[in-house]
Amino acid sequence: MIEQNGAESLVTTLAASHVELCFANPGTSEMHFVAALDRIPGVRCVLALFEGVATGAADGYWRMAGKPAATLLHLGPGLGNGWANLHNARKARSGIVNVVGDHATGHVHFESPLKSDLNGIAQSISHWVRSSQRATDVGADGAAAVQAARDGAVGRIATLVLPADTAWGAGGQAHQAVAPEAAQVVPPAAVDAAAQMLKSMGSRAMLLLGAAGSRDERSQMLAAAIAAKTGCKLMAEFYNARMPGGRGRPRIARLPYAVDPSVAALAGVQALVLAGSVDPIGFFAYPGKPSQLKPPGAALLTLAEPRQDVPAALQALADALDVRVERDLVLAAPAGVTAPSGALTPESVAAAIALTLPANAIVVDEAVTTGRAFGPQMAAAAPHDWLQGMGGAIGFGLPCAVGAAIGAPGRPVLSLEGDGSAMYTLQALWTMARESLPVVAVVFANRRYAILQGELQGVGAQISGQKAVDMLTLDRPNLDWVALAKGHGVAAVRVEDAGALVQALQRGFASQAPCLIEVAI
Amino acid sequence: MIEQNGAESLVTTLAASHVELCFANPGTSEMHFVAALDRIPGVRCVLALFEGVATGAADGYWRMAGKPAATLLHLGPGLGNGWANLHNARKARSGIVNVVGDHATGHVHFESPLKSDLNGIAQSISHWVRSSQRATDVGADGAAAVQAARDGAVGRIATLVLPADTAWGAGGQAHQAVAPEAAQVVPPAAVDAAAQMLKSMGSRAMLLLGAAGSRDERSQMLAAAIAAKTGCKLMAEFYNARMPGGRGRPRIARLPYAVDPSVAALAGVQALVLAGSVDPIGFFAYPGKPSQLKPPGAALLTLAEPRQDVPAALQALADALDVRVERDLVLAAPAGVTAPSGALTPESVAAAIALTLPANAIVVDEAVTTGRAFGPQMAAAAPHDWLQGMGGAIGFGLPCAVGAAIGAPGRPVLSLEGDGSAMYTLQALWTMARESLPVVAVVFANRRYAILQGELQGVGAQISGQKAVDMLTLDRPNLDWVALAKGHGVAAVRVEDAGALVQALQRGFASQAPCLIEVAI
Repeated sequence: MIEQNGAESLVTTLAASHVELCFANPGTSEMHFVAALDRIPGVRCVLALFEGVATGAADGYWRMAGKPAATLLHLGPGLGNGWANLHNARKARSGIVNVVGDHATGHVHFESPLKSDLNGIAQSISHWVRSSQRATDVGADGAAAVQAARDGAVGRIATLVLPADTAWGAGGQAHQAVAPEAAQVVPPAAVDAAAQMLKSMGSRAMLLLGAAGSRDERSQMLAAAIAAKTGCKLMAEFYNARMPGGRGRPRIARLPYAVDPSVAALAGVQALVLAGSVDPIGFFAYPGKPSQLKPPGAALLTLAEPRQDVPAALQALADALDVRVERDLVLAAPAGVTAPSGALTPESVAAAIALTLPANAIVVDEAVTTGRAFGPQMAAAAPHDWLQGMGGAIGFGLPCAVGAAIGAPGRPVLSLEGDGSAMYTLQALWTMARESLPVVAVVFANRRYAILQGELQGVGAQISGQKAVDMLTLDRPNLDWVALAKGHGVAAVRVEDAGALVQALQRGFASQAPCLIEVAI
Repeated sequence: MIEQNGAESLVTTLAASHVELCFANPGTSEMHFVAALDRIPGVRCVLALFEGVATGAADGYWRMAGKPAATLLHLGPGLGNGWANLHNARKARSGIVNVVGDHATGHVHFESPLKSDLNGIAQSISHWVRSSQRATDVGADGAAAVQAARDGAVGRIATLVLPADTAWGAGGQAHQAVAPEAAQVVPPAAVDAAAQMLKSMGSRAMLLLGAAGSRDERSQMLAAAIAAKTGCKLMAEFYNARMPGGRGRPRIARLPYAVDPSVAALAGVQALVLAGSVDPIGFFAYPGKPSQLKPPGAALLTLAEPRQDVPAALQALADALDVRVERDLVLAAPAGVTAPSGALTPESVAAAIALTLPANAIVVDEAVTTGRAFGPQMAAAAPHDWLQGMGGAIGFGLPCAVGAAIGAPGRPVLSLEGDGSAMYTLQALWTMARESLPVVAVVFANRRYAILQGELQGVGAQISGQKAVDMLTLDRPNLDWVALAKGHGVAAVRVEDAGALVQALQRGFASQAPCLIEVAI
C-alpha cells in the first residue's frame, strides 16, 4: 500500500464511500486536499466562485442523486458564506459532507487574521461536527462524516474540520463508510391507527404528504387512491424538496404560503395524518394570526416520520385499507396548454413553461411571488420534478440548479428565479458555463422585493415615504440580467411578451447549454 | 410623548445615539423596522442586495466615520451571509450594530422554514449578543448595543436580535447610549519601560505600529522621529485598518505577507515595542516554518494595546525620549512619478495609480497578489488613506468602498480588487450606482486565484493535473467585468496597456460617479 498523507486518505475514503462530487471553493488551508483530489481518481471537482454556490449545489445534488456530495470550504468565513444554503439543505433534509480547512493545529492558537470561532459557526448549522487532530485520524473521521450525513431516509449536515497539518501529515489511512442502513419501517400499530382514523373520519381527515411521501411518484399514487377510497383530504406541504408533477401524475395541491388561505385549506380538518410531513407551521408569524395552521384541537397522527420509510408506510396503509392504485381513478385529465401570447403575466408565463418544458425536466423554483400561481398549469406540462427552497433563505435556486444538473446527468433543468433572490448567488451562472450544464435560468425582473411589499401589509406595518420604497425596490439603476449573464459567460436574452418567451424557452432547451432569459414582468 | 412601537423606539434610540447609517437587506421580520426608519428621521438607509455588502460597508463606514453603523439583516441566513465581512470588521476592530430580525417570540419555538440556531451563529461572530424579549425593552437594548459596539479606542461587533413582535408591540421607550468613554491612557510605567528599551537597544529594537498607531498621521510622525533619534527599526503590521500615505507623510514599511521575508524583516530584533500592534503571527502555517514571526527569545513590550490611546502613548514616549517631530528629518523626499506606458505590470499599474490618484483619496486594497508591490510607488502619490482587509476573508473590498465613500462624503475612493476576490460580493456595484458614490473600482483580471498558485508551493503540495488547475483558474469562460459592471448599472471599460489605464483612471476620478476598470494583467 502506498503511503498517503491525511488529505489523500480523505479523498480515498470519500471515493470508497461513494462521495463522488466535491463542490469546491478552496483556499490555502485546502491546498493539500486540492492536490490529493488531483492525484486520486474517483471524486469529481466543480469550482464555485462563492461558497454559497458550492453548498446550494450540494443540496441540489443530493435531491437528484440521492447521495451526499462534499463541499470544500476555507475556514470560518468560507463556512459563513455557505451557511445560508446549508440552512436550506438542512431543511430539505439533504445530506452534505462539508470539508472545511483550518489552520494547522500548532497555528490555530494564535490570533492570525483568519482565526475565528470555527467550531461555533460549524455547530450552529451542522448535525455533526468533528475536527481532525492527527493525519492518521483523517480517513476514519472522513468515513464517520459520510455516515453522519445520512439518517435513515433523510440526509444531514456533517462538517469535518481539517487542520492543514492533518492534511499534509503522513500516515493517512483510508477507510470506507459503512453502507447506509435502510430507512426504518414504521410499526404496524402506526399503520393501523392511520387506517382507522381515515376510515372513521372521512373528509374530516387530511393525509398530508412530505419528504419521500411527496417525492415518490408511487407514493403519490397510493395517497391519491387512499383519498379516493376514504374520502379524506389530501395535500402536500407547502415546501417540498422534490415533487414529481406534470401529465400522468396525481395532482396533489400544496398548502398555500400565506396564513389565511392555509388556515382555510385546513378548515374543518379534525385529524391530520402525517406521511413524512410535520405539524404545519406558518412561514412567519403575523399579529393576530396563528403560528399553527391546523384547526385548534385537531388531532395529529404520525404515520411516518420523514426519516422513516414513507413509501413503505403508504403502501402498508393502502393494504390495510384494501386500496389498489388505479391510474384512471386518481388522475384527472389535465387541461391542454394553449400557446400564450401578449403580455407577460404569471398565467402566460406558466403557460409558456408548461408548453415548452421537455419531458423529464427538473424545475428549480425560486420564483417567489411570480411563481406561486404556476401550479395548476404545470399539471399539463410534460412529466417533471419540482424542487423548492426549503429553508426560506433566498439565493437557493441557481446553485441548486447546478447541483441538480450534475446529480441527474442528461436531464434538462429549468431554474425559475425572482430577480431579488437571483442576486444573492448569481456567481452560480459561471459554474453552469464552465461545466456546460443544460440549465435554462428564467429571471423574473419585477425590479422589486415584491414579496416584501405584500409582507409589509401582512404584518400591519404602514409605510408612506421614499425611504421604505427604496428598501423594497431594485430599480435606480435597473439590473441588466442580459449583461450579468454575459459577464459570467452565459448567453442571455430579454423578452417582453409571452410569444418571445416561448421562443426563448424553446431555443434554450434545444441548446442543451446554460442560458438566461430575463422576463420583464 | 408619542406612543412608539418597539421598532420605532429602536430607530429613535439609534438616531439619538449617533448611529446615523443603516446598511440594510431586510426581510419580512424586519418590516416594522423598515416602516420605522421610514417615519422617523435621523437614520439614513442604504440598500444592499446581499448581506455581505451591508456588513462590509459598515466596516468601511466605521473606519472613515469613526462611529458605528447599523446593519439590518434577516434571521440566521441573513447573518450567515454577512458573517465573512463581520469577521473582517472584527479583525479591523470596527464597531457595528447588527439588528437581526427574528420570528415573533411565540413563533420561534416552532420548526418553521427560517428557524435556525440564530443565537449560535450570532455568538460565533459577535462580541455582544442580546435578544429583545419585550417591545418595552427594545430601546434600552438598542442603547446597550450601541455602547457594546465600542471598547475604548476600538470597535466591537454587537448583535441585537429583534423578534418581530418586539418590533410591532406597543410601549417602546427610546433611550440614548451613554457617550463613549475616552480611550484609556497607558500608565507611565509602560511609557518609561518602552523608552528605556528603545534607548538601550537601538537598532536591535523595533517599534511596531498597529491600530491607531498606524492610522493617525501625527502618530506616524512621532514614531518616525523616535526611530530617527533612538536608531530603532520602525514598521507597521502587515494589515492596517487605515493607514495614511503619500507625499508629505512618513514612509513606514509594513511587515511582509510571506513568512520568509517577514522573518527576515524581523531578524536581529531582540525587542519588539508594540504600539497598538500585537505579536506578529504568520497568516498561515507552513510545514517547517514558524507561526510566530519574531526571532525566538525576542522580548515583547506593550507600549499600548489597540484599545488604549495609542497616539497619546506615542506622544508620551516621544516626550520621555525628548523627541520632537521635525518634518525634514522624518520625511524622505519621494521619487517623482513618471507616466507609465506599455505593458500592464504591477509596476506600471502602481505608477498609473500614483500618477492619477486625487488628493485626499481613500484606497481600499483587496488587490491580493497584484497589489503587493504597490507600496513604494504610492509614497509619491497624493496624500491618501489606505484601507486593507483585516481578516483574510475575501470579498471585503467593494463593500468596504461603499461604506468608506458614505463615511467620508466628498472624498474619492479607489477600490483595488483581484478578480477572484471581487466575485464574492460583486453586488456592491449596484449599491455604488444607486447611491451615486464616487468609487473607481479597478479589477485585476489575471483570471486565476494567483495567490493559491503561490500558496500551493508554499505548503509543499504538488499538483500535476488538470483537476487542480481547474480549481485555481477563473477562465473557461472568462469573466467579463465590463458586462458585470453594466449589469449592475455601473459604467466600465477594459484596458490593455498602461497608457489606457492612466486615461481610464483620470476619466473615472473626474466623473465623481461609480465606474469599473478591468485591467488585463
